[in-house]
Amino acid sequence: MEQRVSVITLGVSDLDRAKAFYAALGWEGQSPPGADVVFFQAGGFVVGLWGREHLADDSEVTDTGGWGGITLAHNVRSPAAVDAVLAEAEAAGATIARSGTKTSWGGYNGIFHDPDGHAWEIAHNPHWPIADDGTIHMPGGV
Amino acid sequence: MEQRVSVITLGVSDLDRAKAFYAALGWEGQSPPGADVVFFQAGGFVVGLWGREHLADDSEVTDTGGWGGITLAHNVRSPAAVDAVLAEAEAAGATIARSGTKTSWGGYNGIFHDPDGHAWEIAHNPHWPIADDGTIHMPGGV
Repeated sequence: MEQRVSVITLGVSDLDRAKAFYAALGWEGQSPPGADVVFFQAGGFVVGLWGREHLADDSEVTDTGGWGGITLAHNVRSPAAVDAVLAEAEAAGATIARSGTKTSWGGYNGIFHDPDGHAWEIAHNPHWPIADDGTIHMPGGV
Repeated sequence: MEQRVSVITLGVSDLDRAKAFYAALGWEGQSPPGADVVFFQAGGFVVGLWGREHLADDSEVTDTGGWGGITLAHNVRSPAAVDAVLAEAEAAGATIARSGTKTSWGGYNGIFHDPDGHAWEIAHNPHWPIADDGTIHMPGGV
């Protein structure tokens, strides 16, 4: 199994609400005709939105309805950019779970929860430079 | 907020077990000295493993202990490669939740659950070509 992820699918309870939220953050997705999914090209992979019940069924899991041990992060190039993205997310309908804060590892981050409760860390990590195209390549020594 | 994800962190109950599982799949990670996390370079972003309690705390969420509405997919280049990865995952300690099956959208996929219950779809999607470097770029019309 190669060391990569191709798609991250977020289960949502209201697809139109979720689409509107990510659109308000500036994300442009595509939907196959007649399909109840949205796909966003995100660098070299894809982020999808799909009904949570469908996703649970297709993933062969029992859904207890809460958070499930996966958190996504979106890294930015400065502490000020962390605050700006958190403000943008709040304006789009997110819950700010933690405002921008200095971290123990020398960075700065905050957390928002999207309308379905998916947790996003918005972070400035000075140890992981961000390329012009948004990708991150960890230095050898982390 | 740019249309990208920088890090996906999977919460785990036993970091050594999780490291051993992903190592058995061929993944090579790095850990900062003394830290209880592992990071894998996965294309232009990073997959992390961290104690689920720490991740829940840091993500400002209540953890009900189950699946949380996020599923990851790893796409491969043929139906036979789906079966091969599922076999490799099973040998590494995964639970095969669904063996390779033809899908309604013209592809072929199966599901495994890692030792912490994280769901991975292993898929051949003939509509989304995989570049030599493993990245996926959706055609305009999906």
